[in-house]
Amino acid sequence: MTHFMPSVRGRDAQASPIRRLTPFADAAKQRGIEVLHLNIGQPDIPTPAQVIAAYQQFSGPVLAYGPSEGTLAYRTALAEYYNGLGAAGGGRAIEPTDIIVTTGGSEALLFAIAATCDPGDEVLVAEPYYPNYKGFAHLLAVQTRAFTTSAADGYQITAAQVAAAIGPRTKVLVLSTPGNPTGAVLSSRELSAIAQECRESGVYFVSDEVYRDFVYDPAICEGERTAPGILAQPGFEDCAIMVDSVSKRYSACGARIGCLVTRNREVRAAVLKFAQTRLSPPVVDQLAAHAALSTPAAELKTAIDDYRERRDALVAGLSAIEGVQVRSPQGAFYLFATLPVTDAEKFCIYLLSEFNLGGETVMLAPADGFYSTSGLGRQEVRIAYVLQVSKLQRACTILDRALHAYAGVQASS
Amino acid sequence: MTHFMPSVRGRDAQASPIRRLTPFADAAKQRGIEVLHLNIGQPDIPTPAQVIAAYQQFSGPVLAYGPSEGTLAYRTALAEYYNGLGAAGGGRAIEPTDIIVTTGGSEALLFAIAATCDPGDEVLVAEPYYPNYKGFAHLLAVQTRAFTTSAADGYQITAAQVAAAIGPRTKVLVLSTPGNPTGAVLSSRELSAIAQECRESGVYFVSDEVYRDFVYDPAICEGERTAPGILAQPGFEDCAIMVDSVSKRYSACGARIGCLVTRNREVRAAVLKFAQTRLSPPVVDQLAAHAALSTPAAELKTAIDDYRERRDALVAGLSAIEGVQVRSPQGAFYLFATLPVTDAEKFCIYLLSEFNLGGETVMLAPADGFYSTSGLGRQEVRIAYVLQVSKLQRACTILDRALHAYAGVQASS
Repeated sequence: MTHFMPSVRGRDAQASPIRRLTPFADAAKQRGIEVLHLNIGQPDIPTPAQVIAAYQQFSGPVLAYGPSEGTLAYRTALAEYYNGLGAAGGGRAIEPTDIIVTTGGSEALLFAIAATCDPGDEVLVAEPYYPNYKGFAHLLAVQTRAFTTSAADGYQITAAQVAAAIGPRTKVLVLSTPGNPTGAVLSSRELSAIAQECRESGVYFVSDEVYRDFVYDPAICEGERTAPGILAQPGFEDCAIMVDSVSKRYSACGARIGCLVTRNREVRAAVLKFAQTRLSPPVVDQLAAHAALSTPAAELKTAIDDYRERRDALVAGLSAIEGVQVRSPQGAFYLFATLPVTDAEKFCIYLLSEFNLGGETVMLAPADGFYSTSGLGRQEVRIAYVLQVSKLQRACTILDRALHAYAGVQASS
Repeated sequence: MTHFMPSVRGRDAQASPIRRLTPFADAAKQRGIEVLHLNIGQPDIPTPAQVIAAYQQFSGPVLAYGPSEGTLAYRTALAEYYNGLGAAGGGRAIEPTDIIVTTGGSEALLFAIAATCDPGDEVLVAEPYYPNYKGFAHLLAVQTRAFTTSAADGYQITAAQVAAAIGPRTKVLVLSTPGNPTGAVLSSRELSAIAQECRESGVYFVSDEVYRDFVYDPAICEGERTAPGILAQPGFEDCAIMVDSVSKRYSACGARIGCLVTRNREVRAAVLKFAQTRLSPPVVDQLAAHAALSTPAAELKTAIDDYRERRDALVAGLSAIEGVQVRSPQGAFYLFATLPVTDAEKFCIYLLSEFNLGGETVMLAPADGFYSTSGLGRQEVRIAYVLQVSKLQRACTILDRALHAYAGVQASS
């Protein structure tokens, strides 16, 4: 088979750091160990009833292609949703023609990078970052340039960092707020200052806002119920691209519906051509996503209150473990923790391969895969708090015991 | 806005030739004209009942991500399906681990090109070709190299043409059999000879087989009920990649479920990494696609018999029009026709903008968008026979009258 090697693009692609240890988890399960999954952002909150009902109400007779840009009905409802979140204050109101419905937020990111970068250009990211930003850039032959945020500053991103990091080939900044993997949330003032730096440097700004509802500190929302978003900041009609998804907000990850919103008509035209190439986003899922928009606010609030409790329980549990350093994140449902180990990946494999407490263990995501700079993140892990409080507390107990046991293993090796 | 121009990749992307005239069709509809859509391969055959039922039976409670490579249950069923089609005779039997489930055949094509080509490399296609082959190559910064098949030969592709066309940067040949847009079907012998040329030149061979059931001449199936496929040809385990979709076979275009199958483990590993970047294919649609596999053979046969009647009615109707040249295609549900006009695109726009017969007109796809070589296809159109026989006959009547009227317009201008 050596004659038929994949492309360099294929060989050099990176396996997802979130799923990299899956073979070890599978092996643990085969040994009868129960694995608590804190490695992946798969919410356990029930999907809203009207989303499930939309699937159940689909009746054919022909499951035909939809429009490449998404149905007008859904885009009209989305425009209303964004204007209701204050987008009308960030320039002209959002119109259905500003929106392209995509197959998950994933495809929106792919299209956004493709529409702004040519091969050899650079995407700028703040590390630790969502690893798939780099994955999509790699698929498109685009380089990733990273600047580093620090645990001591709560992984906050500043406009000054952005200004200092932009290089001659940098075409777009991509960040998420509330942030995956750090939970950091940008205030409206910081968001605007970052966009201003981008604009002045001729760099597009892709704001990944899929966690906008997951904020636990009302002050940062400035009277709104969601985190500040780029569409509501005036002055960035030309450079701002917003990426969204129904996955997290409506616990509907498997629907694979997202969207891209921009007031820049030329970018929208380019994205539409990419969208036409793949014909249409999934059709029944789009009906479900449309139904999701009418999820009662009280139901969303209950979910957010649950996550706040989970965050607090996890932070309390981790803080009580000797040597673990953690700060309470403001949003999303992830946190970064620094562990008292020299190589977090080895410890994560140890958790899955050698340790269990009463038949249970924990799967975490080693953090080095969230950094581009070699050597960073070696002591950190990303933990998703997507399980019930009792399970998170149990996970902390397991982690505590495992760290003690591992210290013994390390000392004797 | 000139400051924030899209990437060259975005500016140079081509709008789909199938959808390029949509604004004219929309305008016609607004004037109250009924438009018969022969431009797009959207079947009107009802989606099988068990596919619709799979959506209706989805019950949550959480619509979670699925595995990036597709569910094991669906991949196991697909492996059985391919082995039942003779794939076991083309080397070792297909296993679930040879299969990656994708978001439509579209994503399978994207991943196949990405896994075989780096920027600047070339995809080889036989023109007229499915335009999205070029679209995905363009998105990935890959060039398209085309050789030309001719109407006189029924648009048949030969191994000799492939051998002559492979260049130093050619990394993969992509073709469809049964062919979109031409309806040409490769015999098992021709398919094998083409794969042999690829293999000897170190070029991957992507066989797009989404129309395998749509064959109207039993002889070419050599005793099987489907067109010959690459997985059943021995000797190409290293270079062969098969792309499939549920869209056409099960009239389920809106489900966006396809797959990529290869026995080359390194290619599979590269594709899996791309698949992990976009997390998972749609989940409920995958349940529906799985259900589709048990569609009764009789139901599929009825659909194929319908299409055969449609093909025959369309070919008869077109042949009766003065100056129209057409050959009866062997498969898929498209044909290429040469019209007695100098610029088929202008005529297609005329059909939508200026002509109607009793309030009806016809939308066709001008063929130049199916060619890379400038100037080719100017007199040709692609016609999809996805409507009832009576509507196809009506479309031929409209076309006949329109050509006469247009000849007058051309003569007087």
